Amino acid sequence: MASTSSLALSQALLARAISHHGSSDQRASLPAFSGLKSTASRASASSRRRNAASMSKIRSLRPLVRAAAVETLEPTTDSSIVDKSVNTIRFLAIDAVEKANSGHPGLPMGCAPMAHILYDEVMRYNPKNPYWFNRDRFVLSAGHGCMLLYSLLHLAGYDSVLEEDLKSFRQWGSRTPGHPENFETPGIEVTTGPLGQGIANAVGLALAEKHLAARFNKPDAEVVDHYTYVILGDGCQMEGISNEACSLAGHWGLGKLIAFYDDNHISIDGDTEIAFTENVDQRFEALGWHVIWVKNGNTGYDEIRAAIKEAKTVTDKPTLIKVTTTIGYGSPNKANSYSVHGAALGKKEVEATRNNLGWPYEPFQVPEEVKSHWSRHTPEGAALESDWNAAFAAYEKKYPEEAAELKSIITGELPAGWEKALPTYTPESPGDATRNLSQQCLNALAKVVPGFLGGSADLASSNMTLLKAFGDFQKATPEERNLRFGVREHGMGAICNGIVLHSPGLIPYCATFFVFTDYMRGAMRISALSEAGVIYVMTHDSIGLGEDGPTHQPIEHIASFRAMPNTLMFRPADGNETAGAYKIAVTKRKTPSILALSRQKLPHLPGTSIEGVEKGGYTISDDSSGNKPDVILIGTGSELEIAAKAGEVLRKEGKTVRVVSFVCWELFDEQSDEYKESVLPSDVSARVSIEAASTFGWGKIVGGKGKSIGVDSFGASAPAPLLYKEFGITVEAVVDAAKSLF
Amino acid sequence: MASTSSLALSQALLARAISHHGSSDQRASLPAFSGLKSTASRASASSRRRNAASMSKIRSLRPLVRAAAVETLEPTTDSSIVDKSVNTIRFLAIDAVEKANSGHPGLPMGCAPMAHILYDEVMRYNPKNPYWFNRDRFVLSAGHGCMLLYSLLHLAGYDSVLEEDLKSFRQWGSRTPGHPENFETPGIEVTTGPLGQGIANAVGLALAEKHLAARFNKPDAEVVDHYTYVILGDGCQMEGISNEACSLAGHWGLGKLIAFYDDNHISIDGDTEIAFTENVDQRFEALGWHVIWVKNGNTGYDEIRAAIKEAKTVTDKPTLIKVTTTIGYGSPNKANSYSVHGAALGKKEVEATRNNLGWPYEPFQVPEEVKSHWSRHTPEGAALESDWNAAFAAYEKKYPEEAAELKSIITGELPAGWEKALPTYTPESPGDATRNLSQQCLNALAKVVPGFLGGSADLASSNMTLLKAFGDFQKATPEERNLRFGVREHGMGAICNGIVLHSPGLIPYCATFFVFTDYMRGAMRISALSEAGVIYVMTHDSIGLGEDGPTHQPIEHIASFRAMPNTLMFRPADGNETAGAYKIAVTKRKTPSILALSRQKLPHLPGTSIEGVEKGGYTISDDSSGNKPDVILIGTGSELEIAAKAGEVLRKEGKTVRVVSFVCWELFDEQSDEYKESVLPSDVSARVSIEAASTFGWGKIVGGKGKSIGVDSFGASAPAPLLYKEFGITVEAVVDAAKSLF
Repeated sequence: MASTSSLALSQALLARAISHHGSSDQRASLPAFSGLKSTASRASASSRRRNAASMSKIRSLRPLVRAAAVETLEPTTDSSIVDKSVNTIRFLAIDAVEKANSGHPGLPMGCAPMAHILYDEVMRYNPKNPYWFNRDRFVLSAGHGCMLLYSLLHLAGYDSVLEEDLKSFRQWGSRTPGHPENFETPGIEVTTGPLGQGIANAVGLALAEKHLAARFNKPDAEVVDHYTYVILGDGCQMEGISNEACSLAGHWGLGKLIAFYDDNHISIDGDTEIAFTENVDQRFEALGWHVIWVKNGNTGYDEIRAAIKEAKTVTDKPTLIKVTTTIGYGSPNKANSYSVHGAALGKKEVEATRNNLGWPYEPFQVPEEVKSHWSRHTPEGAALESDWNAAFAAYEKKYPEEAAELKSIITGELPAGWEKALPTYTPESPGDATRNLSQQCLNALAKVVPGFLGGSADLASSNMTLLKAFGDFQKATPEERNLRFGVREHGMGAICNGIVLHSPGLIPYCATFFVFTDYMRGAMRISALSEAGVIYVMTHDSIGLGEDGPTHQPIEHIASFRAMPNTLMFRPADGNETAGAYKIAVTKRKTPSILALSRQKLPHLPGTSIEGVEKGGYTISDDSSGNKPDVILIGTGSELEIAAKAGEVLRKEGKTVRVVSFVCWELFDEQSDEYKESVLPSDVSARVSIEAASTFGWGKIVGGKGKSIGVDSFGASAPAPLLYKEFGITVEAVVDAAKSLF
Repeated sequence: MASTSSLALSQALLARAISHHGSSDQRASLPAFSGLKSTASRASASSRRRNAASMSKIRSLRPLVRAAAVETLEPTTDSSIVDKSVNTIRFLAIDAVEKANSGHPGLPMGCAPMAHILYDEVMRYNPKNPYWFNRDRFVLSAGHGCMLLYSLLHLAGYDSVLEEDLKSFRQWGSRTPGHPENFETPGIEVTTGPLGQGIANAVGLALAEKHLAARFNKPDAEVVDHYTYVILGDGCQMEGISNEACSLAGHWGLGKLIAFYDDNHISIDGDTEIAFTENVDQRFEALGWHVIWVKNGNTGYDEIRAAIKEAKTVTDKPTLIKVTTTIGYGSPNKANSYSVHGAALGKKEVEATRNNLGWPYEPFQVPEEVKSHWSRHTPEGAALESDWNAAFAAYEKKYPEEAAELKSIITGELPAGWEKALPTYTPESPGDATRNLSQQCLNALAKVVPGFLGGSADLASSNMTLLKAFGDFQKATPEERNLRFGVREHGMGAICNGIVLHSPGLIPYCATFFVFTDYMRGAMRISALSEAGVIYVMTHDSIGLGEDGPTHQPIEHIASFRAMPNTLMFRPADGNETAGAYKIAVTKRKTPSILALSRQKLPHLPGTSIEGVEKGGYTISDDSSGNKPDVILIGTGSELEIAAKAGEVLRKEGKTVRVVSFVCWELFDEQSDEYKESVLPSDVSARVSIEAASTFGWGKIVGGKGKSIGVDSFGASAPAPLLYKEFGITVEAVVDAAKSLF
């Protein structure tokens, strides 16, 4: 019984069975987290397009194979089969790129040896359940080389990449898009391609493992225990984000993070000599990493194996294994040149490469002995998972409380009634900055949501993000939940993507000043694209921050995120709206939420509510009848108070006024036409919006006859109240605008 | 005569006399580059608010002082005056922050010694002409410590920071905003505050010097010869952008870049131990820098002097001088803690600090002997400039051609008729991708514009940005103009900000895929804010890039830049529009331009023109009369062709159709109401827009009854033509939308 429940537990959802291709209303249908699927529905999803799933290959290879897998590092197979397997990987990549006439063959050809050793000899995974909790994670940070990963998943027996998928590489609706996408292809952990993201995601994955292991493992039960492997290239190394994330990895001592640096001396513009001559080894040593150099990454299998073995002995530092390879290895005329990086080899060169490597097989053909060799991973993976299930069942018996918490983190099922922990407020509650109200929510949530953790990019005391009941996640205290990212916004976002994609119930938040989303936008877009429900706590959200001036005052940022697909941009006005934003943010596990929060104190307004926030836009006060107010005043965040005050002035002058909070446009977009009409009746064209930010985009809301009050220039350095006056973000401005419409 | 002309030459404009505070229509009034102002008008601008300019202090100190300045590194003054000067800097910062009750006293108190030595003993500048071409550049990368810089400018005799300015620190309309802003305060080279930008700007400034020196210096005439100094803190060091830029600085061997790392072990969240334990010295050595450690930055004046001396002897590498300091040095109860970082000390602690440092002076008081000591910089600076003018006059005689080029770079005056070099096209010209057409423009411009240079973040062959007539700017060939940034987008943008702010006639362009503006947005916003006319060449501008898929397909980026103040977002449709965009981009020296360019081939359309682009939006075809078409079809970039074809279809069906190119919304916004009405008559509500990007923002253009065709979800991986069909970016969609409006 216990075993059955934990088996189901470990088989988390096969995410997102329905592809989003071509759906132009994706944003409107932001899917809620679908919870734990049954084994049956998972199987059905994964075999949707795959009637020929090779289940018959489960044979009794288990004892032999598992020994090899557990030991991992002894060359248990003769090198001819390794050669053949490595060349299979190379040619699957060559053939797929050739058929698509598009893609990147160079990296897979060069990295095939290390990749083979990882997936065939070292990593612990279950190809038939890509979501098994305790699997080793692999990240291809150099995402353009995705045919490497697709070839590996295919050989390893993942149902997500069958031969037909390899043949439809980079085609419409395929599971093998041009860069690895976790939401398209089970077995892919994170979405990579934009360089440097993957290595930073891997830091997040390794952090998650270290944190969960420290919280849940017992001397007699290591229920959390896996490695995180990465392959990154010269491009990833040059990106600042990778230095940020790797500096943190060294600081945190993430000993189970092992990164392979594909040192091939070639980038798109040619030899790395033209722009990249730093000493990478020395830099990583400076960052606190253990560094190993594999000089012959092309054929030095034992060198690679020895490096991994050494890396595993270093438990207090992450390891960088620099593997010197030849890009496009095997291509007689294009290897070691940029021409093999990002284009098909061409028919002639494919033939030359076949001859050069002695490869008599047809395109896409996997030699039988290679198939047979790799077939052991299906039973082996099943056994690994089944052993873990048994171990977890024992753990559950002995440590029921910890098991319940860990289960919630593994499945993403939140404890019943968690949302009741969120604070509520009345207009009589003392006014406060929404950044402070946010801190009340964060602390309330951390008490009831086991996987809630996060931190700030060196602004904890300004962003108000410290969890008071917990200490700092540090090398020696990884069980704690306050993450200290230092001034590394981009790395922070990508690390959080890694954390959230580690386990459905890990809910990371991260924080900085709203204006510095500019530094981390690359990672935030990947949150949205890869359906990673990170919570972005962004304070100091307007000119209302005052004296720090225009370098620190966001203007265009709200609009810029409203335009980003699958992103919820919240700008709460007070305590209830802040709580409402958090309620949704926690629920939306496949959509990142951004909370723009004030530095300055705000009152709690009559009429605001958590339920209102769930609608995205709603009426907070109205003295009209028949859905025909004389004017509709629309505000967000700190300007909702101004709209409300302007409403009072206009009502005193005899006008009927509706005041609307537009706290989250995306949620409003999802509502029924009927609801929308009840808030913004099409007959009422007298509409005024006020928001201390760019007016860009408001035209659609206020309509051709409405007016938008905002800030369309950069801000200035001065006390906040004066700035509001000078920039015309005032009650008088709203009243005047409204009057001009009567 | 020659001497007079070169004197005028070196006195470039005192930029931007009129502050932009509070002007909500800043965007609409994007000022054109105002060219070289006369000496008279400069003086008038600079003394606008300053009738008491201390010109009377120009005495005959010259011979003595200049010797000290030229030698720079000998301690020529007794240490008691140095102590007093250093404490003056500290207390000016303390007093200004105290009066504003806002700001960052900790850094100025800790960095005063190195800053004093730089501005008083080392740097060569002319306080009465902050724009003297050959001045040493100083960048405070840790911009929050701006009171350090304001104090220095005040002591050195800059008219931009008088006592009244110090007293209005962080107040509305002052010259002393909360972070250093080059556009507010002459003497400030670049705008800093967002961490890491300044050090990257400094790399750009040093690159500019090295490039110009290599191009223009002669064995008998070093007309370009200055250092670039930076102070950066722990925050800057953590940011990825600084690693990117410093890696390039090492690669390029920028020997005249000298960076002071304020190593004070404190960041906002507390001791750097919590998030920053890497070995910075070793990392910089790995990046190819020379590293020196000054162990006593608080009082070790001679150590600091010796370090600078040593740094200057290393000519093939940039130097990092790690200066260990105490943040808030002198404050008995707050020094060495985060509490002194970003808040006023408070009355009591100010008094305690006065006692502790033995400072009997009133707030804002500069002791007479300190005033007197610093007063020599005014005559010294005038002498430096005058000597340089004489040298340049001699150079001009001997090397008239080179002098003319250099002069154009110094003044920003473009050679007459430069715009005639831009290519033009007819509908019969062979169709091409706008990225290729862009390359024709870049190469045409590089031939006629002396200060035109740039490059790509490792995508030169995809962005099509190579200048064929030039080689690569490298350590050994710094006279060349192709910059190889490697995969470092953020660093690239900030380096270009440094280049463009070095000299009015340096016009850098930089390139990557449009989607990766997400990586460099922090720098792009600083371009806009600091009035740095960088040209951003952004190719692969839509789902039209095809197989690389959604990680590489920009969706929300166009909207996000349309919302950014002082930014021109161009999306040209063909050759003429690409040339038009470049014409404006080259002219607009105080506004960055972003060109979104296609990967795919496009036809040259009838009706497009350079003149049209200058209007931002214009009619390319129209068969209506009386300014009353049945429908207006509006397109940009690659979709203008679709709009034009849909127009043909509708005309065949008897409708009158106007087709409008909306290539740059910001320029259209600047046009007269009359012109706008001539393109988009308010009576015509039947409007359809088409753009392969987010429809966000189009509501204002098409109005409440119009329709917008776009892509509001993420893209997908497939061949481009199929993507256009699947996402509904088609002629049929435009025709159907138009018909629904009749």
